[in-house]
Amino acid sequence: RLGKLAVVVASYRRPGALAAVPSPLELCDDANPVDNEYFFDRSSQAFRYVLHYYRTGRLHVMEQLCALSFLQEIQYWGIDELSIDSCCRDRYFRRKELSETLDFKKDTEDQESQHESEQDFSQGPCPTVRQKLWNILEKPGSSTAARIFGVISIIFVVVSIINMALMSAELSWLDLQLLEILEYVCISWFTGEFVLRFLCVRDRCRFLRKVPNIIDLLAILPFYITLLVESLSGSQTTQELENVGRIVQVLRLLRALRMLKLGRHSTGLRSLGMTITQCYEEVGLLLLFLSVGISIFSTVEYFAEQSIPDTTFTSVPCAWWWATTSMTTVGYGDIRPDTTTGKIVAFMCILSGILVLALPIAIINDRFSACYFTLKLKEAAVRQREALKKLTKNIATDSYISVNLRDVYARSIMEMLRLKGRERASTRSSGGDDFWF
Amino acid sequence: RLGKLAVVVASYRRPGALAAVPSPLELCDDANPVDNEYFFDRSSQAFRYVLHYYRTGRLHVMEQLCALSFLQEIQYWGIDELSIDSCCRDRYFRRKELSETLDFKKDTEDQESQHESEQDFSQGPCPTVRQKLWNILEKPGSSTAARIFGVISIIFVVVSIINMALMSAELSWLDLQLLEILEYVCISWFTGEFVLRFLCVRDRCRFLRKVPNIIDLLAILPFYITLLVESLSGSQTTQELENVGRIVQVLRLLRALRMLKLGRHSTGLRSLGMTITQCYEEVGLLLLFLSVGISIFSTVEYFAEQSIPDTTFTSVPCAWWWATTSMTTVGYGDIRPDTTTGKIVAFMCILSGILVLALPIAIINDRFSACYFTLKLKEAAVRQREALKKLTKNIATDSYISVNLRDVYARSIMEMLRLKGRERASTRSSGGDDFWF
Amino acid sequence: RLGKLAVVVASYRRPGALAAVPSPLELCDDANPVDNEYFFDRSSQAFRYVLHYYRTGRLHVMEQLCALSFLQEIQYWGIDELSIDSCCRDRYFRRKELSETLDFKKDTEDQESQHESEQDFSQGPCPTVRQKLWNILEKPGSSTAARIFGVISIIFVVVSIINMALMSAELSWLDLQLLEILEYVCISWFTGEFVLRFLCVRDRCRFLRKVPNIIDLLAILPFYITLLVESLSGSQTTQELENVGRIVQVLRLLRALRMLKLGRHSTGLRSLGMTITQCYEEVGLLLLFLSVGISIFSTVEYFAEQSIPDTTFTSVPCAWWWATTSMTTVGYGDIRPDTTTGKIVAFMCILSGILVLALPIAIINDRFSACYFTLKLKEAAVRQREALKKLTKNIATDSYISVNLRDVYARSIMEMLRLKGRERASTRSSGGDDFWF
Amino acid sequence: RLGKLAVVVASYRRPGALAAVPSPLELCDDANPVDNEYFFDRSSQAFRYVLHYYRTGRLHVMEQLCALSFLQEIQYWGIDELSIDSCCRDRYFRRKELSETLDFKKDTEDQESQHESEQDFSQGPCPTVRQKLWNILEKPGSSTAARIFGVISIIFVVVSIINMALMSAELSWLDLQLLEILEYVCISWFTGEFVLRFLCVRDRCRFLRKVPNIIDLLAILPFYITLLVESLSGSQTTQELENVGRIVQVLRLLRALRMLKLGRHSTGLRSLGMTITQCYEEVGLLLLFLSVGISIFSTVEYFAEQSIPDTTFTSVPCAWWWATTSMTTVGYGDIRPDTTTGKIVAFMCILSGILVLALPIAIINDRFSACYFTLKLKEAAVRQREALKKLTKNIATDSYISVNLRDVYARSIMEMLRLKGRERASTRSSGGDDFWF
Repeated sequence: RLGKLAVVVASYRRPGALAAVPSPLELCDDANPVDNEYFFDRSSQAFRYVLHYYRTGRLHVMEQLCALSFLQEIQYWGIDELSIDSCCRDRYFRRKELSETLDFKKDTEDQESQHESEQDFSQGPCPTVRQKLWNILEKPGSSTAARIFGVISIIFVVVSIINMALMSAELSWLDLQLLEILEYVCISWFTGEFVLRFLCVRDRCRFLRKVPNIIDLLAILPFYITLLVESLSGSQTTQELENVGRIVQVLRLLRALRMLKLGRHSTGLRSLGMTITQCYEEVGLLLLFLSVGISIFSTVEYFAEQSIPDTTFTSVPCAWWWATTSMTTVGYGDIRPDTTTGKIVAFMCILSGILVLALPIAIINDRFSACYFTLKLKEAAVRQREALKKLTKNIATDSYISVNLRDVYARSIMEMLRLKGRERASTRSSGGDDFWF
Repeated sequence: RLGKLAVVVASYRRPGALAAVPSPLELCDDANPVDNEYFFDRSSQAFRYVLHYYRTGRLHVMEQLCALSFLQEIQYWGIDELSIDSCCRDRYFRRKELSETLDFKKDTEDQESQHESEQDFSQGPCPTVRQKLWNILEKPGSSTAARIFGVISIIFVVVSIINMALMSAELSWLDLQLLEILEYVCISWFTGEFVLRFLCVRDRCRFLRKVPNIIDLLAILPFYITLLVESLSGSQTTQELENVGRIVQVLRLLRALRMLKLGRHSTGLRSLGMTITQCYEEVGLLLLFLSVGISIFSTVEYFAEQSIPDTTFTSVPCAWWWATTSMTTVGYGDIRPDTTTGKIVAFMCILSGILVLALPIAIINDRFSACYFTLKLKEAAVRQREALKKLTKNIATDSYISVNLRDVYARSIMEMLRLKGRERASTRSSGGDDFWF
Repeated sequence: RLGKLAVVVASYRRPGALAAVPSPLELCDDANPVDNEYFFDRSSQAFRYVLHYYRTGRLHVMEQLCALSFLQEIQYWGIDELSIDSCCRDRYFRRKELSETLDFKKDTEDQESQHESEQDFSQGPCPTVRQKLWNILEKPGSSTAARIFGVISIIFVVVSIINMALMSAELSWLDLQLLEILEYVCISWFTGEFVLRFLCVRDRCRFLRKVPNIIDLLAILPFYITLLVESLSGSQTTQELENVGRIVQVLRLLRALRMLKLGRHSTGLRSLGMTITQCYEEVGLLLLFLSVGISIFSTVEYFAEQSIPDTTFTSVPCAWWWATTSMTTVGYGDIRPDTTTGKIVAFMCILSGILVLALPIAIINDRFSACYFTLKLKEAAVRQREALKKLTKNIATDSYISVNLRDVYARSIMEMLRLKGRERASTRSSGGDDFWF
Repeated sequence: RLGKLAVVVASYRRPGALAAVPSPLELCDDANPVDNEYFFDRSSQAFRYVLHYYRTGRLHVMEQLCALSFLQEIQYWGIDELSIDSCCRDRYFRRKELSETLDFKKDTEDQESQHESEQDFSQGPCPTVRQKLWNILEKPGSSTAARIFGVISIIFVVVSIINMALMSAELSWLDLQLLEILEYVCISWFTGEFVLRFLCVRDRCRFLRKVPNIIDLLAILPFYITLLVESLSGSQTTQELENVGRIVQVLRLLRALRMLKLGRHSTGLRSLGMTITQCYEEVGLLLLFLSVGISIFSTVEYFAEQSIPDTTFTSVPCAWWWATTSMTTVGYGDIRPDTTTGKIVAFMCILSGILVLALPIAIINDRFSACYFTLKLKEAAVRQREALKKLTKNIATDSYISVNLRDVYARSIMEMLRLKGRERASTRSSGGDDFWF
C-alpha cells in the first residue's frame, strides 16, 4: 500500500518549486518499522489532503484537527502553511494565532507559577512562618484564614474607594475628620499587606517586577510621598506651595488605581488585563477607526454648520467632541447640528460610528472568551492538583502501600464533590467511571 | 492488530509521570471478547488521539465528539482532561461547562417534574376535582378551560400593573375610586389563584419553596400586610404613622414583582431567569468591570474638571454618575465635561465602557441561547409525550391488540400535524419514514 | 460482521422501555441484499453512535451530519430524538428548528413560484401582451425594459416619500401647489402599476391575498378614500367635518407604508420581513423582557424619586418613559434621577436593559443571516435556471442534436461570466472542471 | 467493490432529470489505474453523500470539507450545487461566497503585488537609487531608514490634522501665523513624498490609478488650487470673490481626507476599506433598513405629536431627525415626544432601530474578520518570504554548497525568533520539528 501511495504522489508531483522537498517515500524508506506503522496510520488522515494538494494545487484545512496539529502534519509532508488555500486560510490563521498567544502566555505563566510553587522557604529566617504567611496571603482557597484574609482585603479596597469619593464632596468638618481616619486605616492595611508579602519572598527583585505588586505599590506610594512633600514644604513661598499642590493632586489621581487591586481576587479582571495585553493591536484599531471617522466627519460638519448664527460648532475641536459623542451613540446633546446638510452628515457619522465600533470588538470578544475560559480551567487545574496532593499525603500517612493512582484520583473527586457543589472541574465525568471499569 | 498498537504505545510511552497509569494492553487482556470488540471499534476513533498524545505529549480534542463523550474516551485510556493541549483547551472547557450546567439543571428539574407528574391526587379529599383543577391551573396546554384560564391570568397581571401605574398619576377622586376597585378585583383574583393552587397540592412545604409560588405570594402579601397595619395604626401618634407610612411604601414596591408572574407563561422569561442563575459570575463580572472603569475614570475626570467655575462635576460621586451614563452610552447630558483634558478622558471612558460591556455579554449570550433552546425542546418533549399517552389510551379503548409502538408514534405525529401548524417538534422527519421502512 | 454487531447490541441492550423497538437485526434479516449493503455502509457512520447509546444510555449528535439527516439515521435504528443527551441537545434543536423553518418556508414559496412560473397566459385576452407585461412588471432582471421600469418604480417611491415629508413643512402657497401636483403624479403611477398587474394575472383573488400587492393597495387607497370622503362631506356641519378630518388623518398615516413597496426590489428587506415573521416569538420576547424590566425599575425609581421637590418623575407612567429611554441607552435626558438611591437604581436599570436587549437579538441574528443567504441563493438559482433555459433554447434553434447537458451547463457559465462580473453563483468552481474531466 | 457501488447507485437511480448525467461507473471504467485508485480513495468520502443523494433526493454538505472543495467533489459526480438540501444550504452559500470574494480579491492583489515585486528599476535613469528610494518609501519593514521614514510620515499626517483643527479656533494673530507655517511645512512634506513616489515608478498611469496615491493627491491638490485661485482672483468683483470663497471652502473639506493616508501604514484600515468595498450590499441594507424605519415611524410620530402646542415636531423632516437619533440610540434630546401615543410610537421606533441595526452588522462582522486575518496572514507571508530570501543570499555568500531548503527554512525561523518576539508566523510549530525528523 505504501508503494501505491508513493506512485500516486510521484505521478502527480508537480515539477518545480517543490522538487527540493524530500518526498514522502524517501522519508518512509529509511524509517524504522514503527514509523512505517505510524506512517500508515497517518496516511488515512492527513495524506488525503496532501494528495489532494499535489493533484490540484489546493490545500484545505482539516477541520477536525486543531491548527497546530494540522501544521505538524503538513510539515511532515514538506508543505508550508502558506500553501493553504484562500478558502480555509483566514479560519486557519485565526485559530492558530489564538492558540499561539494562549500557548505563549501559558508557557511564561507556567514558568512563573512553577517558580512560585517551587519557591522553597527553607532559606532565610523562619521558613515555616513565612510559608504559612505566604499561603494565607497568596492562596485564598488554601485555608479558612486565607479566605477570611481575602474577603477583608476586598472590603478594604472597596471602602477606601468609597471613602475617597466621599472626601471630595462638601462635608462638615467632623465628617471629614472621620473619613480621614478611615483613609489612614486603609493605608495602614495596604502597607501592612505589601510589607508582609515583601518580607515573605526571597527573590525581591522579581517580586517588584510583577504587575499586581506594582499596583499595590502605586496604591500606597502617593500617600507617603504626599506626607514627605508636605513635611518638607513647611517653610516655603506661595509659588512653591502651588507647585507642590499640583504634584499632590497628580499623586492623588494614582489612588484611583486601588480598584485594580481587585484583580488579585477576580479571574475575570485578569482575563480582561490579559485580553487587553494581547489585543493591543485590535484596541489600537478601534482608536484608529474612531479617530479617522471623527476627523473626517467633524471637519465636514464644521463647514456645514459654521455659517449658522448661534451655532454650537464654534471650531473643529468642538466638532471633534460632537463626533465623539455621536459615533459612540452617547449623544449628550450639548452640541448638535441644526442645518439640513449637517443633519445628513450627522446621520452618516452616527452610522459609520456604529459600524466601525462593532468590527474590532467582535475580534476582541473571541480573544476574551478564550482568555477567560483558559484562566478558569487553569485555576480548576491548580485547585484539583492541590486537592490531589493533600489527599495523597493523607493516604500516605494512613499507610496504604500499593495504591493505584487512579483510585486516588477517583477518591479525590468524591471528596471534592462532597466539599463544594459548584466547582466541579471534572466531577460529572467520574459518574461514568463505574461503567468503563 | 491489538498487539501492534500496544507495541507502538509501549515504544513511545514516555518515562515518568504516566507510568502509574494502567496501560491499554493491560486493560484489554482481561476484558471479555465483547469488550475487545468494542475496544477494536474504539481504537479507530479516540485511540488515534491517544496515540498522538503518547508520541508527542499533546492531546487534541476530537471536534466530532461532544465534550463529555470525549472525556469518557480519554479517561478509558488513563488520560486526564488537564492534559489537553492549550490550543483546544478553551473550546473544550467552554463546551463542557455549558453541557454540565444544563445537565445539572435538567436533572434537578426532571426530578421535580417527575415528582409533579407522579404526584398522585388519590390521597386527601376529592381526588378527581383536585386533579382536574391542577391540570387547569398548571398545564395551560391540556384543555380549553386551562387555556382560557391562562389567558385571563395574563390579562389580570397586565391590568394590575397598568392600574398601579395610573394610580400614581394625579387623577380625579372618581377615577381613583374606580382604579381602587380594579385593584381589589385583581388582588382577589391573585389570592384566589394562589389559594386554589395551595389547596390542590399535597406537599405544601415543597409548594411554598418553589420560586413561582414565592413570587405569587410576594405579589399579594403586601396588600394584606398594608390592610393589617392600617387597621392596627388607627389610634396612634403622628410619629408612628410616619413609620407605618414608610413600611407601606416599601411594601408597595413589592407590587412591581407582579410582572414576574408572567414567568409562569413564558419560556423566554424562564430562560432569562435560568441564565441569570447560571451566569451570576458573568453578570458579576459585568458589574465589576463597570465599577472598576467608573471609579478610575470618574476620579480622573473629577480632577480634570473641578477647577472650572460652574462645573457640573461637584464631587466624585457626581463624576460616578457621569461615568455610568457615559460608559453605558446613555448620555443624559445633565453632567458633561467642558475642558479639553476632560473631553479626552471622556473619550477613553466611553470607549472602554463600550468594550467592557461587550465582553461578558458575549459569554452570557451563548449561555442564554443554550438555556432557551433546551427549555423549548423540553416543552416540546412534554407536549409530545402527553399527546402520545392520550393516543395510546384512545387506541387501547378502541381495543387494538398487538400494536407496534412505532405505528402509534407515527399516528401521534399525524394527529399533531393536523391539530397545530407550528408546533412541529419532530414532524418533518416523519415524512421520510415511509421511505426507510 | 453483521452478526457480531447484533451480538454486541443484544448483550448491552437495556431491559425495559426500549424492548418494544424492533432490533436492528430484525430489520436487517428480512431486507434485500442491497439494503444489507446499505446497512453495512451505514454501520460505520451512525451505528457507532447508536451502539454507544445502547451501551451507555447517552446519545450524542454527529456534528458532521446535518440535523435532519441525523434524525433519519437514528429513527432507522428506532431511537427518538428526545433521547439525545443534554450536552448536544440545544445545538441539535437549534439547527433543526432553523432548517425546518427555512424548509417550510421554501416549500410554500416553491409552490407559489412554481405556480407563478407555470401561470400560463394562454387563457384570457392578449396572451403575448400580458406575458410580456408581466415579465416587465415582475422580473426586473429579464430585460432592459424591465430594469428601467424597476428603477423608475424605486424613484417614484422615494420621491413620493420626500414629497410627503416636505408637504408637512411650512411652505409658500406656490411650493405647496407644486408638491401637490407631484403627489398626484406619484399616485397616478402607483395606480397604473397596480392596475396593470391586476389586469395581467388570471387568478385575481390569489393576487389580492399576497403581501406585496396588499401593500401596493394600502399605498393608494387612502388617497381615493380621502377624495371620496371630501366630495361627500361638502355640505355638512362642523361636527361632522371634524370627524371626517380625523379619518383623513389616519388614512394619511397609511401613506408611510409606501416605503415598504421597496420590498419588491430588495432581497434584504424581504429577508427582514421573513425573519420577523419567523421570529415573532423572539421579537415578542424582546418586548416582554423590556416590559418586565421597565415596569419593575420604573416603580422602584418612582418611589425613590417622588419625594424630591421639582422631580421630573411625576407619576409611574412618566417613570416608564424614563425606563424606556434608559434601558435602550437612548437617554434623551428630559427626565432623570436626582437622588443617590435613584441613581443606583438607574445604574441597575441601564445594565439590565443592555443585557436584556442583547440576548434575544443574538437568536434573531442567526435566523436573519440564514434567511438572507437562503433568499440570495434562491435568487441566484432562479437567475441561473433562466439563463440555462435561454441557452438551451438557443442551442435547440441552432439545431445541435446530441448535446450533453454538462456542456450546456459549462457554456451557460461562460456566458454568465462574460455578462456580469459579480453575480457568480457557481462560476469559480467551473475553473477546476478542465482538470476533473 | 467498485461494481457493488455502481449497482447500488444503479438500483436507486431515480428516473428522469438526472438520466443525462454520466454515471460514476462510466466515468470510472475509462479512467487510468491511478484515477481508479483516486476514485477508490474518494468513494469513502464524498461518495457516501452522493449515494445518500441518489437514494433520498437530499444532498447534505460535508462539514469537514471546505465549500469549494466540496463543490468540486459533487460536480465530479455530476451533481449541481443547487441540489443541496435547504438545511445545509445557507451555511454552504455563506462560506462559499466568503471564500470566493477573498479569493477574487487575492488574485487581483497578487497580480498587483507580483507586478510590483517584479517591477524592475533597470529601465530609466539611476536604477539603484530608485530601487533604494522605493524600498524606503513603500516597504516600511525593509530597513531602519524605511522605518524612520514611515514614522515621520505618520507624525506629519497627525500633526497636519491637529493643525487644521486648531486653525478653525479663534486664536491670536501670532499663533495663526505659526500654524500657517506648520501647514506649509506639512504640505511640503506631502508634496515631496508624492513627487518622490511618482519619480520612482516606471508605469505612471498605473501609479495614478491606485487608491492610496489618489488619496495622496487629493490631500495636496486643494492647497495648490487654492493658491492658484487666490492669485488669479486678485482683481475681481465682490460677487466673484464670494464664488471663489465657496470653492475654496469645498476644497478645504478635502483636507480631511489626509487622515486616510494612514491606510498605507495600517492593516486594519485597509481591511476596513476592503470590507466596505465587498459589503457595499450589506451597508446599503443597513441604510435601507434605517430609511424605511425612519420614514414610517417619523410620519406616525409627526401625526401623533403635531396637535400639541409648543411641540418640537414642527414638520416631517424634523421627525426624520428625531427618528434618526432615536433608532441609533444617540438621543440628543433636542426633539422628543410629549404625548402618550408619541411615547409608545417612540418605544417601537427605538426597539426596531436596535433590531434593524444589529442584523446586517453581524454579516458585515464576519466579512471583516475574514478580511482582517487574510491581510495579516498575507503580510506575515511577505515578511517571511523576504526573510527567507535574505537568508538564502547570506548562506550563498557564505558558500555553503549542498544545502537542504528545509534546513534553510528552519534557520530562517530561528533567526526570526531571535529578531522579534511577536511576529511569529510559523515559529511555534518549528518546536516540534526536532521530533518529526
